[in-house]
Amino acid sequence: MDLGTYYRGKRVMITGGLGFLGSNLARALVELDAEVLLVDALLPLYGGNLHNIESIEDRLTLEIADIRDQEAMNRLVPERDIIFNLAAQVSHLDSMANPLLDLDINARGNLVLLEACRRLNPGVKVIYAGTRGQYGTPTESPVREDHPMRPTDFYGVNKVAAEQYHFLYRKVCGLRATSLRINNTYGPRHQMKHSKYGVLNWLIRVAMEGKKITVYGDGSQLRDYNYVDDVTEAFLLLGASSEVDGQAFNLGSGEPISFLESVVGIIDTVGGGTYECVPWPDERLAIEVGDFVADYSKIGRVLGWSPRVRFREGLERTVEFYRQNWPHYWTS
Amino acid sequence: MDLGTYYRGKRVMITGGLGFLGSNLARALVELDAEVLLVDALLPLYGGNLHNIESIEDRLTLEIADIRDQEAMNRLVPERDIIFNLAAQVSHLDSMANPLLDLDINARGNLVLLEACRRLNPGVKVIYAGTRGQYGTPTESPVREDHPMRPTDFYGVNKVAAEQYHFLYRKVCGLRATSLRINNTYGPRHQMKHSKYGVLNWLIRVAMEGKKITVYGDGSQLRDYNYVDDVTEAFLLLGASSEVDGQAFNLGSGEPISFLESVVGIIDTVGGGTYECVPWPDERLAIEVGDFVADYSKIGRVLGWSPRVRFREGLERTVEFYRQNWPHYWTS
Repeated sequence: MDLGTYYRGKRVMITGGLGFLGSNLARALVELDAEVLLVDALLPLYGGNLHNIESIEDRLTLEIADIRDQEAMNRLVPERDIIFNLAAQVSHLDSMANPLLDLDINARGNLVLLEACRRLNPGVKVIYAGTRGQYGTPTESPVREDHPMRPTDFYGVNKVAAEQYHFLYRKVCGLRATSLRINNTYGPRHQMKHSKYGVLNWLIRVAMEGKKITVYGDGSQLRDYNYVDDVTEAFLLLGASSEVDGQAFNLGSGEPISFLESVVGIIDTVGGGTYECVPWPDERLAIEVGDFVADYSKIGRVLGWSPRVRFREGLERTVEFYRQNWPHYWTS
Repeated sequence: MDLGTYYRGKRVMITGGLGFLGSNLARALVELDAEVLLVDALLPLYGGNLHNIESIEDRLTLEIADIRDQEAMNRLVPERDIIFNLAAQVSHLDSMANPLLDLDINARGNLVLLEACRRLNPGVKVIYAGTRGQYGTPTESPVREDHPMRPTDFYGVNKVAAEQYHFLYRKVCGLRATSLRINNTYGPRHQMKHSKYGVLNWLIRVAMEGKKITVYGDGSQLRDYNYVDDVTEAFLLLGASSEVDGQAFNLGSGEPISFLESVVGIIDTVGGGTYECVPWPDERLAIEVGDFVADYSKIGRVLGWSPRVRFREGLERTVEFYRQNWPHYWTS
């Protein structure tokens, strides 16, 4: 698959395009000479950040719009070749505190977008950003795509529903949907305002500020972290393949590590910060799934994807990015 | 379990209380001297019918209210001992035509009700009306409760989400939820206005009118029909048990029969009507799941439930009811 040939001139839309995954994907697509439309609602609690498209602003189109706005989606969806659908409420904790908001964004918002596709671009290719949170507590490991989906929070329940909506639109109108079930991802351009999601990135800030990182329990739970460039490559490969329609794919790192190891890696890479282990807070323990290791052999087999950036290298790149850019992501 | 002792004086709320399952359940609860509150929005396309509570009107309280109305739910939920949560959009076909409406009623509506519980009656016992539609096309038969849930329509996706919402409120506020995943159910007090759901009942009307019943394909797909009184008993048993909190249960008939056999049984019982086999319409075939047979051994083991009313006996009772009452259910 020559991605350059495929994406050149393709009309690509990215929902959540000013966010972490969306903006990194946008950078890659601009480099591939795609015609890029970013759609983002810039909701204050999430990761949309204009600095994320610094230096590529002139090579794309930006629409500040919410996927829940039917008129806006009807206006934006026509004539797109590919939609990378990444807009979401992404905090597990907030979904427990406000399930109706999570439903509104993560379930209804996707239906609004998909209804626009049905009416105005029925056969469009859509890549949906799924999540490991769809699986809930693993009953077997590594977790394959056919693992039962029994999420531990409303976020996961609504992400499952939205993924299934995407696949059902194949019956409704011939939509070509694929889901990429993403693990914990880290890297440049993640929000650093709060710790409600994307905790690995948050901890980089804590270490950079020379503060103490809090580890719940003994930190022994395994995690499967992907560096954002590897996730971007997976999106690009899925968007360029016709044999993945109607299917879901895991990602993984090939080097699952404990949460505590990741903390030590951060402190070491940053050269600052400390850590302390404390008992699990009830609200966190209630949605914690324990060890999570993904089986990502399917996307390897079908598209030849494999993770390229090892954890320490990814950390170094991330820390370097925030050293250069931190004032755009937090105020000291 | 002595249901009479348990339910006497219990403050019971039934959402969708004027509908098919709700009104049959209400009749049983009134007989058990429960204090019954029916809540129903009387949406025109569904089964709410004031005639369903004929002769028991004076022994219950009726509120015309929608589960999507937060203020109404906040007013009605406090001080209930048990909530049987049966309100729903129940047409598979309509869910495909209007996914946003299905989401609004079947997902958001349940969250509105559950949020009222969180604020005002956090530990209340709730029995949710789930559906065999949550499973999708069976990959093993009979279908057990741990069968994967891969629905073939939006109705099923949103019913899965709503069931999981119920279980998650245990973490949120200690809510005691149980799900009864109901099969095709037939019997008195089902709506007879259209064929969009509850097809077995609809066919009784067609036969009573001496018309021709349309069978899609060869009618060989197996179905597991329950008579409504057996479903009512299952609801009562679940509502009276504390060991079922957080669990889901199937029902079944013990005598799965083909769709064609059920049609022949209807024509025979009614003494009228004919049938004809025609090719599957695309919109029906797209959501058809093929043979469906439920494993209902769990509710038998835990609560001693088993189906009591055999298919032909149930048909006879149903036909007799509509012979007496049909003008309340359709206009000739």
